[in-house]
Amino acid sequence: MTATITTSIALERLAGAVQANVDALASAPPEAATIRPRVRTSLIKGTPTGVHVSTGPHEFTIDEPTSLGGDDTGANPVEHLLASLGACQVISYQVWAAKLGIAIDNVEVDITGDLDVRGFFGLDHDIRPGFNTIQVEARITGPEHRERYEELTDLVERHCPVLDIITVGVPVTSKVTYAD
Amino acid sequence: MTATITTSIALERLAGAVQANVDALASAPPEAATIRPRVRTSLIKGTPTGVHVSTGPHEFTIDEPTSLGGDDTGANPVEHLLASLGACQVISYQVWAAKLGIAIDNVEVDITGDLDVRGFFGLDHDIRPGFNTIQVEARITGPEHRERYEELTDLVERHCPVLDIITVGVPVTSKVTYAD
Repeated sequence: MTATITTSIALERLAGAVQANVDALASAPPEAATIRPRVRTSLIKGTPTGVHVSTGPHEFTIDEPTSLGGDDTGANPVEHLLASLGACQVISYQVWAAKLGIAIDNVEVDITGDLDVRGFFGLDHDIRPGFNTIQVEARITGPEHRERYEELTDLVERHCPVLDIITVGVPVTSKVTYAD
Repeated sequence: MTATITTSIALERLAGAVQANVDALASAPPEAATIRPRVRTSLIKGTPTGVHVSTGPHEFTIDEPTSLGGDDTGANPVEHLLASLGACQVISYQVWAAKLGIAIDNVEVDITGDLDVRGFFGLDHDIRPGFNTIQVEARITGPEHRERYEELTDLVERHCPVLDIITVGVPVTSKVTYAD
């Protein structure tokens, strides 16, 4: 029971925060509902593929393994993309469990993807540079009936932001500046 | 000149690694060209939205800000998604500059995205949960003629794995297991 009690305190706190957001959105103009995260990435000087990442108060490093010419000082970009999907699934399970009052003891999500590197290296124009497929394996542990967790899974699949981004795609506009 | 000399050593090392990969791919069966990154994400017990991420030798934390009910112990999932795109752009610039022998002193990429949180909270079914648009702003610094960097940008846009994933989308299959 300890796990359930500990996690229920966390879910109650989360439920309060979610409700506060929903209440604020109800009384705000629609344009106030749009958030605009900003992330700065920059080459770490003198390294082949080290990238310093900064967003709000958070900083971390993304790099490539030595087999791809990097120094392996951090997970690489496609691993971070899979991590963002897995974490978004975990957090969406928590948020929707909190909204619905469903108890959860644990959520684990493993993500894998298949990527043919010939696309990235420009060796075959018929091969896309990104993942061909991505596989999600989630494990939900808790005291409720299976039907409640199935209901939860359905809500997570329909509302997980990163799942939506990756499956549907997003238009990306690019502006590049060159300087000496 | 110091920056150019330092970065050219890094790019030469990267060029060697890229060529080694290309040579290995030329003599290997096509199925050997597929890599399969694996990432494990799991709820940090007792927290509302803390997620422990593990991939190969790398570990990090993804969380939500306190305004969304989290403890802000790491950047959140959509920020990590934008970080993966920015880092993939920076690394793709380095890899293709190394392949083509183009000198680069610095690469910086800022990424922003517009996300209407009413989609995530299930308040309006016509609003998608993910980003509506993503904006990339890249700044390339180096001693070469502008035309060479424009050529480089064209190659990066066509071969960046995360740009491809996010703009085109990827089929995702999910398997969920429930346990007491």
